[in-house]
Amino acid sequence: MSLSPRFHEPRLQALLPDLAASAAARDRDGGHAATEKARLREAGLLNLSIPRAQGGEQLPWPDLYRAIRRLATVDSALAHVLAFHHLQVITVLIYGSAAQHDAFLIPTREQGLWWGNAMNPLDKRLIATPVAGGYRLSGIKSFCSGTRGSDWLTLSAHVEGQPYPLLAVAPTAQARQLDDWNPIGQRQTDSISVQFEDVFLPDAQVLKRPNQAPTPAQTLRNCFAQLILVNLYAGIAEGALEAGIRAVRESRAWNSAGVEQRVDDPFQQNRVGLLDAQLAGAQTAADRAAELLALAHARGAALSAEERGEVSVAIARAKVLAHRISLSASQELFEMTGARGTGQAEALDRFWRNARTHTLHDPLDYKLNQLGRWRLKGEWPNPQFYA
Amino acid sequence: MSLSPRFHEPRLQALLPDLAASAAARDRDGGHAATEKARLREAGLLNLSIPRAQGGEQLPWPDLYRAIRRLATVDSALAHVLAFHHLQVITVLIYGSAAQHDAFLIPTREQGLWWGNAMNPLDKRLIATPVAGGYRLSGIKSFCSGTRGSDWLTLSAHVEGQPYPLLAVAPTAQARQLDDWNPIGQRQTDSISVQFEDVFLPDAQVLKRPNQAPTPAQTLRNCFAQLILVNLYAGIAEGALEAGIRAVRESRAWNSAGVEQRVDDPFQQNRVGLLDAQLAGAQTAADRAAELLALAHARGAALSAEERGEVSVAIARAKVLAHRISLSASQELFEMTGARGTGQAEALDRFWRNARTHTLHDPLDYKLNQLGRWRLKGEWPNPQFYA
Amino acid sequence: MSLSPRFHEPRLQALLPDLAASAAARDRDGGHAATEKARLREAGLLNLSIPRAQGGEQLPWPDLYRAIRRLATVDSALAHVLAFHHLQVITVLIYGSAAQHDAFLIPTREQGLWWGNAMNPLDKRLIATPVAGGYRLSGIKSFCSGTRGSDWLTLSAHVEGQPYPLLAVAPTAQARQLDDWNPIGQRQTDSISVQFEDVFLPDAQVLKRPNQAPTPAQTLRNCFAQLILVNLYAGIAEGALEAGIRAVRESRAWNSAGVEQRVDDPFQQNRVGLLDAQLAGAQTAADRAAELLALAHARGAALSAEERGEVSVAIARAKVLAHRISLSASQELFEMTGARGTGQAEALDRFWRNARTHTLHDPLDYKLNQLGRWRLKGEWPNPQFYA
Amino acid sequence: MSLSPRFHEPRLQALLPDLAASAAARDRDGGHAATEKARLREAGLLNLSIPRAQGGEQLPWPDLYRAIRRLATVDSALAHVLAFHHLQVITVLIYGSAAQHDAFLIPTREQGLWWGNAMNPLDKRLIATPVAGGYRLSGIKSFCSGTRGSDWLTLSAHVEGQPYPLLAVAPTAQARQLDDWNPIGQRQTDSISVQFEDVFLPDAQVLKRPNQAPTPAQTLRNCFAQLILVNLYAGIAEGALEAGIRAVRESRAWNSAGVEQRVDDPFQQNRVGLLDAQLAGAQTAADRAAELLALAHARGAALSAEERGEVSVAIARAKVLAHRISLSASQELFEMTGARGTGQAEALDRFWRNARTHTLHDPLDYKLNQLGRWRLKGEWPNPQFYA
Repeated sequence: MSLSPRFHEPRLQALLPDLAASAAARDRDGGHAATEKARLREAGLLNLSIPRAQGGEQLPWPDLYRAIRRLATVDSALAHVLAFHHLQVITVLIYGSAAQHDAFLIPTREQGLWWGNAMNPLDKRLIATPVAGGYRLSGIKSFCSGTRGSDWLTLSAHVEGQPYPLLAVAPTAQARQLDDWNPIGQRQTDSISVQFEDVFLPDAQVLKRPNQAPTPAQTLRNCFAQLILVNLYAGIAEGALEAGIRAVRESRAWNSAGVEQRVDDPFQQNRVGLLDAQLAGAQTAADRAAELLALAHARGAALSAEERGEVSVAIARAKVLAHRISLSASQELFEMTGARGTGQAEALDRFWRNARTHTLHDPLDYKLNQLGRWRLKGEWPNPQFYA
Repeated sequence: MSLSPRFHEPRLQALLPDLAASAAARDRDGGHAATEKARLREAGLLNLSIPRAQGGEQLPWPDLYRAIRRLATVDSALAHVLAFHHLQVITVLIYGSAAQHDAFLIPTREQGLWWGNAMNPLDKRLIATPVAGGYRLSGIKSFCSGTRGSDWLTLSAHVEGQPYPLLAVAPTAQARQLDDWNPIGQRQTDSISVQFEDVFLPDAQVLKRPNQAPTPAQTLRNCFAQLILVNLYAGIAEGALEAGIRAVRESRAWNSAGVEQRVDDPFQQNRVGLLDAQLAGAQTAADRAAELLALAHARGAALSAEERGEVSVAIARAKVLAHRISLSASQELFEMTGARGTGQAEALDRFWRNARTHTLHDPLDYKLNQLGRWRLKGEWPNPQFYA
Repeated sequence: MSLSPRFHEPRLQALLPDLAASAAARDRDGGHAATEKARLREAGLLNLSIPRAQGGEQLPWPDLYRAIRRLATVDSALAHVLAFHHLQVITVLIYGSAAQHDAFLIPTREQGLWWGNAMNPLDKRLIATPVAGGYRLSGIKSFCSGTRGSDWLTLSAHVEGQPYPLLAVAPTAQARQLDDWNPIGQRQTDSISVQFEDVFLPDAQVLKRPNQAPTPAQTLRNCFAQLILVNLYAGIAEGALEAGIRAVRESRAWNSAGVEQRVDDPFQQNRVGLLDAQLAGAQTAADRAAELLALAHARGAALSAEERGEVSVAIARAKVLAHRISLSASQELFEMTGARGTGQAEALDRFWRNARTHTLHDPLDYKLNQLGRWRLKGEWPNPQFYA
Repeated sequence: MSLSPRFHEPRLQALLPDLAASAAARDRDGGHAATEKARLREAGLLNLSIPRAQGGEQLPWPDLYRAIRRLATVDSALAHVLAFHHLQVITVLIYGSAAQHDAFLIPTREQGLWWGNAMNPLDKRLIATPVAGGYRLSGIKSFCSGTRGSDWLTLSAHVEGQPYPLLAVAPTAQARQLDDWNPIGQRQTDSISVQFEDVFLPDAQVLKRPNQAPTPAQTLRNCFAQLILVNLYAGIAEGALEAGIRAVRESRAWNSAGVEQRVDDPFQQNRVGLLDAQLAGAQTAADRAAELLALAHARGAALSAEERGEVSVAIARAKVLAHRISLSASQELFEMTGARGTGQAEALDRFWRNARTHTLHDPLDYKLNQLGRWRLKGEWPNPQFYA
């Protein structure tokens, strides 16, 4: 019995062996994980973040983050897709009206709908033009993770003359999907571009108008997103460390090691010890940030900018730690396997490729800079930009 | 208002400015901090860990650890002395009978007594010989932190033919104090050797007889000690980072930096950002370990070896992180101050010397090894030896 | 004009653009680089190490190493194949008689023959059985880099009851080639296994009999091999750094960088600065080791075990430095490119995959151990084993 | 016999044991090393850099640098003083006329004079006012290493309305010495401030007038200075590693190490191996830079700005490597000694304090920046500023 049992979502745990078994092949082939996404849906995992009021399970986000992290140990691309589905659910909850909560989330639960993300804030090419009863959407949005196979998208669009982005939802079918995602890692996140060609967006689908500044409570959306990445990175690190430990357990020691079995090699022991400690630091910081985020979210509209800043600092710290351990664990994995771990069929390099690909969308240099400016100058991270 | 206010012991906070002001001079002079120890006692800080049953404050250990960490930011030697006083209190509570709790802790509270430590497990030169009604003690014990100026000592002694050490308490006045502590750091911990010369130890002072194996719950004593060190290291790191931040705020930038003020130097910002994140990882892991330790301690005699092992793993992880950040923050401090920080009067090198001295008593190599063996082979850290 | 012009083999330089242009595609496809090997041969690059006495160019090995390193910046697999060709040439020179020098190296020069390597010392499955006029060879040898498309192999074989391996050469056509090389990196080194099935090995092809201990001068063969790996790693690092520098020059800065162009980003500047310095350390150490190796080789049979040890220490030091910078430069490359560098078509991850694959065949842990044992205990690295 | 014997100045070697024996005490006391400076002079070591034309030894600078590095292994403060004496000699040679060479260096050799440094370029408080036959000097100059006990100073001064500093020499006795050097490390470098109070500076003592831009060949003076620092840092690192190796050889292993002697502890072996390799990288880069510097200096007035830049890049690379290893070796020293190495009497922390103090006068951040800007943008390091 453990002093401090951690939540493990049992339906997800049941899927992990199959997902692990196919992960190398799916990494090689890339493309869309239709079968696997169907299994996640059938297991009911799309309902985890939906409130009980809309018939969902309302799993606390700290537990949801742990579930995502666990999934990322075997497949960080699929974990990204599932996590981003839930990010869109919380986006509707944060920005939408009570009526919109019901209108979008009850069908999500009843029909097992998937949500994709078209809210990339750096890409301002999607334009919304006001018309009677809504807007017309035209333009492109890149890096729309989870779009393929989804039913609805959240999106941000620029409205001329307006200070803030319009936030809205739209049926995925209304957008053309471009086949432009073929990276070295995170290959099955479907992070393609989508194109809207003069699509009508009715007011009922608008979550936030472009003249409204987001409140501190609303900008927690970015915190929810950032903390997903933290847990993906930490999951990749844990998956790499676990793969390394398996290899060490199953291998003979190097021939000048002076011991027979690799588990008795002192250098392997200390390598595992250091990675374990560093990973524990990242995981603990991630869990702590999740608790703060849940506290902040529960505070609702009363949340102050300072409290919001406090959450974002906790997440940034965890992100720095998770970023670094994801790269070092996935690199050190090979010191654990030795040369026998370099077969392409096993694709053990996918941990590093996944970490390396995903960690670039928000550079470590500028994440450190946010933290340093806050400590030195008291500046909170900009809530509208990767924080 | 903070989302997650941390405990700050107000009486300790009130003492910090004076302790900080004299820290450099006391580091230079070394020796015994009689004045400062008197102020800690007068402030009532010796009662923090004493149970309410004995008239004490019964502060939860997670809060006590935070108080020690805070004190260590300005004076890690004094923090060690105060923390080790409380370590002896919990030692009496863990190993002593109810009668002993009253016999030793009520006077401690009423008379403001200090406790020192003569339990160094690596030094087996103190011998206890059974006699009628007790034992006779002879021999030396080294590294007895907090002995000078203390009223009572806890001690371990070897009894011939017995499998385990005898654990006991004795009045400090019964031991001769050797003047053999003059290190490069942690200079005011009074970690001298003490010598007993045929001293009678009555049964009433014996906490554990040498034929009794300690239970898992009892070996938590080592966990309490280890987690003190973790918090001392983390406190040193925080103190160094704070000193560096002060220097950056008050200094001009390097002349080719392209900015006027050092707070605007991007390299200083990112240095602070990285140290802040790494320190947060160590602190969070330390806090988490303290929660687990408190849980385990509360379980009492029911504690299993596995649960005890779980606590020791959490502490070892935090110790690895705190060890590393204490050295790197105290070294990087000087990149923040630049050459103007190298004056001997300010003694900013004391953070590094304190960290460097204290981190050697339990080598990082073998702490990593404990963690690695546990992850690879499932071996719990040896509860009787630095874990 | 440079103070210290470095050798650049002009025929090789002329080939680099084409090799660079096809490197990503050939990394993807793996298999045998027939076209590229033909071009290296046509350029006369197989003759570089052949002595003038046999009609070759007798390029000093320090220059040859620099040429290999340069080739490795664009294609470390092909560089491995070319370097190992020359390793077999020097093997014939070191172990062979004057008659064998002529018998094997004159045709190599005249006919543009390629040599492959079947001397992997860890694999003892190839057995030579003495018969009249020679031996019969049976068994398998793994990791025979450069075998495919080669004309001759050097090989080591075990002879029952004999203390040392037999060293010999054999026509590649006499061995069956197994299709068992499909790794994550160094994909075109053709490091397949070969199988001999009762093949007659005439005495004229035997370089060293199994009852002869190799002399210190002969064990320089391992030094030549080790220093090839050093220069491959350093070349990978240089290639990665150059790719990163190109990306930085062509990219816009991150949007919160406060500058327009990425070359003006202070963090990119300092990243490049650190990698440049560390790479220079590895390169300088590699060059210095090459000078020592050339000195030692020139000493011939007079070479003492201590002098041989001195060379191996210099190489081991350079190998540690090159190993580390190859991994860090190929990882940091992506901080330079940002997310736009993660396209699979460009395959910029091949630098890391190449480094990661190749650095595992002689673990860093035990290379450090050789150096440490030498410094602490005066033990020279074992000349028969990766040193 | 070694393949590649390194120069060891025998007169210096003979002094090292005594200097090592008193180093800890002199570090504690600080102040002026009069006795030790007298011994260096008596040994003839002040003549090493003086040309044969002025009766000196004209030791090649690469050898002189190695001698300085060797001295720095036991006493980096004294090494700084001796090296800076030679820096002033080369300054007179670089900037002075043939007549000045004779006028200043022949007495230096004949009378065994010491030179100190008042050329700190960041401090512009020393003013030279033109008068008939020369200038009048007034003002302060800080960080004038080697002033105490010296006979002559080189100095730079600001002349109003002039674009460049005036460079000159002056008798030390003409300046008032301030007692303002009491740092945590490099305690015996006598890097005090000096004050000139309306002192007449005759034209004969002027090396360079303030309207003359220095030529590339002249700005090599900064390269000579920078490379001194490189070798001081590398010497500190080597001294720390040697101290650590001695401690490992003389100590028992940690009690859970599984071996008796510390030299057999695998972690100690690999720690030494890594430090040895990194130090070798720094030393090799320093030697290489010294060869380039000697080449450049030999080129005389023909030296181009590009060639000068090439030298400065080589030195900057070596400086980065030496800076880093000086800090890590002096920190890791204590992992080698364990707790028994922390006695204040032995003062083994002086390696770290010396490294930490000396490395701050030219921040690593901006040294990396110079290298990065050169690699990315082709900008040579500014020859007038720490390069």
